[in-house]
Amino acid sequence: MSAPQPDKITGTPLVSRQDGQTTTVVPVGDVLFGGEKVIIIGGPCAVEGRDQITRLAAEVASKGGTMLRGGAWKPRTSPYSFQGLGVEGLELLAMARKSSGLPFVTEVLDPRDVETVAEVADMLQIGSRSVQNFPLLREAGASGKPVLLKRGMMTTIDEWLNAAEYVLASGGKDLVFCERGIRTFEPAMRNTLDLGSIAVLRERTHLPVIVDPSHAAGSRRYVETLARAAVAAGADGLLIETHDDPGHALSDAEQSLMPADFGSIVDSCRAIAQAIGRDL
Amino acid sequence: MSAPQPDKITGTPLVSRQDGQTTTVVPVGDVLFGGEKVIIIGGPCAVEGRDQITRLAAEVASKGGTMLRGGAWKPRTSPYSFQGLGVEGLELLAMARKSSGLPFVTEVLDPRDVETVAEVADMLQIGSRSVQNFPLLREAGASGKPVLLKRGMMTTIDEWLNAAEYVLASGGKDLVFCERGIRTFEPAMRNTLDLGSIAVLRERTHLPVIVDPSHAAGSRRYVETLARAAVAAGADGLLIETHDDPGHALSDAEQSLMPADFGSIVDSCRAIAQAIGRDL
Amino acid sequence: MSAPQPDKITGTPLVSRQDGQTTTVVPVGDVLFGGEKVIIIGGPCAVEGRDQITRLAAEVASKGGTMLRGGAWKPRTSPYSFQGLGVEGLELLAMARKSSGLPFVTEVLDPRDVETVAEVADMLQIGSRSVQNFPLLREAGASGKPVLLKRGMMTTIDEWLNAAEYVLASGGKDLVFCERGIRTFEPAMRNTLDLGSIAVLRERTHLPVIVDPSHAAGSRRYVETLARAAVAAGADGLLIETHDDPGHALSDAEQSLMPADFGSIVDSCRAIAQAIGRDL
Amino acid sequence: MSAPQPDKITGTPLVSRQDGQTTTVVPVGDVLFGGEKVIIIGGPCAVEGRDQITRLAAEVASKGGTMLRGGAWKPRTSPYSFQGLGVEGLELLAMARKSSGLPFVTEVLDPRDVETVAEVADMLQIGSRSVQNFPLLREAGASGKPVLLKRGMMTTIDEWLNAAEYVLASGGKDLVFCERGIRTFEPAMRNTLDLGSIAVLRERTHLPVIVDPSHAAGSRRYVETLARAAVAAGADGLLIETHDDPGHALSDAEQSLMPADFGSIVDSCRAIAQAIGRDL
Repeated sequence: MSAPQPDKITGTPLVSRQDGQTTTVVPVGDVLFGGEKVIIIGGPCAVEGRDQITRLAAEVASKGGTMLRGGAWKPRTSPYSFQGLGVEGLELLAMARKSSGLPFVTEVLDPRDVETVAEVADMLQIGSRSVQNFPLLREAGASGKPVLLKRGMMTTIDEWLNAAEYVLASGGKDLVFCERGIRTFEPAMRNTLDLGSIAVLRERTHLPVIVDPSHAAGSRRYVETLARAAVAAGADGLLIETHDDPGHALSDAEQSLMPADFGSIVDSCRAIAQAIGRDL
Repeated sequence: MSAPQPDKITGTPLVSRQDGQTTTVVPVGDVLFGGEKVIIIGGPCAVEGRDQITRLAAEVASKGGTMLRGGAWKPRTSPYSFQGLGVEGLELLAMARKSSGLPFVTEVLDPRDVETVAEVADMLQIGSRSVQNFPLLREAGASGKPVLLKRGMMTTIDEWLNAAEYVLASGGKDLVFCERGIRTFEPAMRNTLDLGSIAVLRERTHLPVIVDPSHAAGSRRYVETLARAAVAAGADGLLIETHDDPGHALSDAEQSLMPADFGSIVDSCRAIAQAIGRDL
Repeated sequence: MSAPQPDKITGTPLVSRQDGQTTTVVPVGDVLFGGEKVIIIGGPCAVEGRDQITRLAAEVASKGGTMLRGGAWKPRTSPYSFQGLGVEGLELLAMARKSSGLPFVTEVLDPRDVETVAEVADMLQIGSRSVQNFPLLREAGASGKPVLLKRGMMTTIDEWLNAAEYVLASGGKDLVFCERGIRTFEPAMRNTLDLGSIAVLRERTHLPVIVDPSHAAGSRRYVETLARAAVAAGADGLLIETHDDPGHALSDAEQSLMPADFGSIVDSCRAIAQAIGRDL
Repeated sequence: MSAPQPDKITGTPLVSRQDGQTTTVVPVGDVLFGGEKVIIIGGPCAVEGRDQITRLAAEVASKGGTMLRGGAWKPRTSPYSFQGLGVEGLELLAMARKSSGLPFVTEVLDPRDVETVAEVADMLQIGSRSVQNFPLLREAGASGKPVLLKRGMMTTIDEWLNAAEYVLASGGKDLVFCERGIRTFEPAMRNTLDLGSIAVLRERTHLPVIVDPSHAAGSRRYVETLARAAVAAGADGLLIETHDDPGHALSDAEQSLMPADFGSIVDSCRAIAQAIGRDL
């Protein structure tokens, strides 16, 4: 794939917000990111089996979630950790979509898998560790699918915007940013959620931004506080990990919410959304 | 002053929240930190003159603020920057208190000044750079005055709790924590506001916690987003810098709000407070 | 490619140093990483043309360098920056190897390019931004070529060791770590070189470790200090950017050394190497 | 004490290196910081008793150290940790100076103690947590004693230079910087030693800079690597913690070296010093 051509640039990056420009609405099926409604995405860290993902999708839908997440390819620190079910996980997500009616987002790790994932998924997630994986960003852009671009643990906002520019410069149109915490010296949570990034992105880009409180918290006890703060800060959505058997989850068990807690967070976030003139 | 005696300790630090313990209400005049109401503290970075501080105090009161802030001794990076009016600033704050009816908090930098400040101020602020100034913490505790303890830019939550323990071990009873952002690699704001610290402090301490969005933001454009998020995260109050002539402020001009903007932030924070069952 | 099988693991990761184990010598042509000699790798950030790379290779060889570096695929923050010459750059490096007699290392960014690069290059570089690009690590390991694994700007030593484990678990045998600085709050240099990582890696892994002072410094004025410190800390080699026309370099001009300065650094590092019982 | 007057400033800060200016030699008794010789300061974290400090002083002298360190007032995270012997510790240090012939440096924490400490000590240490304790910096400067100014764990080089300017603007002439590691995300060592700061300080200030590898390492296993690197980077001295009964040390036991290891580090650092045209 050839690099994007600088001579096509008219001066302003494609991600930049122009004076007076409103936030671009990014549609994923019926779900509209960047509109009045705050989008709630729920689901497990990893797809582990048919029963698990269909059951969780039903729970997410019944508790007020409007979109499903689930990992088929998992970026794991160690090569000996569970790496995801791959193509089988993708098929299970498609079944859960059918039964629940929720569109789904799933991570793609390898540029060689983009075509396969794009054929099935409603939205491609580029994970934190891939935020500067430029070949992957280009393939994701070229696929034409909506892209959910997580911030890297140590990515500046400028670098993040440039990463999004790779997607748009390769033909992508629909991109949503996802703040998920940055790496700092503070060990009390896994990462430090940087809600200020929402204010900065609002100035610099016309694209929507959502927040993942689960990965930042690293513990379910802290998810609600961060979720509420994110909605009040103006996030266009939340990406929340849920599980109904956290004791046996193959990854990220500590930070996944039980469905009942997921429902209660959705309710308290709705009240905050309404207080600032939005809804969910 | 002798160090606190380990043999007085019964095992649990004085700052720690016991099982089932509710948040301690810290009174400063009529103002109650840690109760149902979210406390709004407004005022300038530095006291610059009599007109300035009385005028700003009146504005803070009329726009819904319930307490006044203002610096008489300023910790400045350079020895050649304006260092504050000292005792004269303290007297001006007392006048502004009288005219506005608002109690005030002001920073004390030097253990030798604690007695002087404690005679006049309603609450002593220990600033970010002093969070591990142990002689100062001990004097502040011994004064018996309520203490507002800012988090250091480099301070873990554990270290911050230990700093508060110095105040309590020296006789202090009334202490309020103030999150104000930590230093990270991200340059878009001056510091990264760590709202997760509210959730962590709630678990670990029975003392109230407020948030200073102004110093974290470093720019008035970002203050409202951070203020709203702080209230939604459960902060017991906000410390907001205001100025009515930011172009001529002697310090922190960039991050100070005009009174009108202060009022509009108070209003939107009130709506969020009510959405989570509080008020302001 | 299937994930490595946990059941093949006998308990200890392949990268780990066993009790009493000596440092593994990693051969790249005649160059031996991890032996008595400190290896000096020089060359430009990016291959820009035939004359440039052959001239610089000759300079590196004449000034005491024993290996050549040069980028054919460049990971750039912006999609509109020069992205490298790709396959043509690889061919130019092969010409420079022939004329200078120096083996070369070059970065590979895309798992689809590994086979192509491995056919020509003597050593594959996995860059900072790719340290947790797991599909790329697996392909690099499967290629059987020696791998130079840079530390990410955001990577803990534990994560770095796990990244190397991906290479070894996929069939790779010859891997050299390269410390290049981490991202911190300090803006004076581009990154903060963490020479302590050499001491930590010595304990935890049997594989060699070299240091890239150029990327950490971000300015040629600081390269010599960092290079000398790295050799004294026990680095098995240095990776130094050189250029003979920094004013016109297409990338990283600020941090590239002129050949004369490169020679003088080699000389001062030799004296230090000899002082600690090594040579270069 | 009144603040330094901006109108006394002729444009350039007193700490700044002028074009062509050589490093200022700071004398502490017979010890000359910033000259040809690399100064080795050894001694315990805290003075614990007469025998301990005189015995350790003798060991430091016999193994090649030229100056003694020891804490009488200790800045401790918790108010219930050992806080030092205070004035008694100071007197014990004076006895150890007499018996060993080594001048000593000791930390002062409280501006009210500066006069007492300055009467006895050869050099005043301003510790990491006090680097922006402005009243303390002013008193230290006014005392006329040489000052050893440690870098804060999260102090930028610019802020550190400004802290030194407080000392000089208050009448201090003799100041030595001490790099001791900064706080980063990497947990393998207590802090990340930033040896690049030596290169940056060389450009920006005419004052000497030494390195404390013990506090950065947090473990004696890593001290030698960091010490050697510091000398190669051009440090004017080393500050190394030693103890002869680390199992019973009242503070910092993990990072203190036994005298024999101290001697072996001195020897290997001497070889490196000589390789770069210095000595110790």
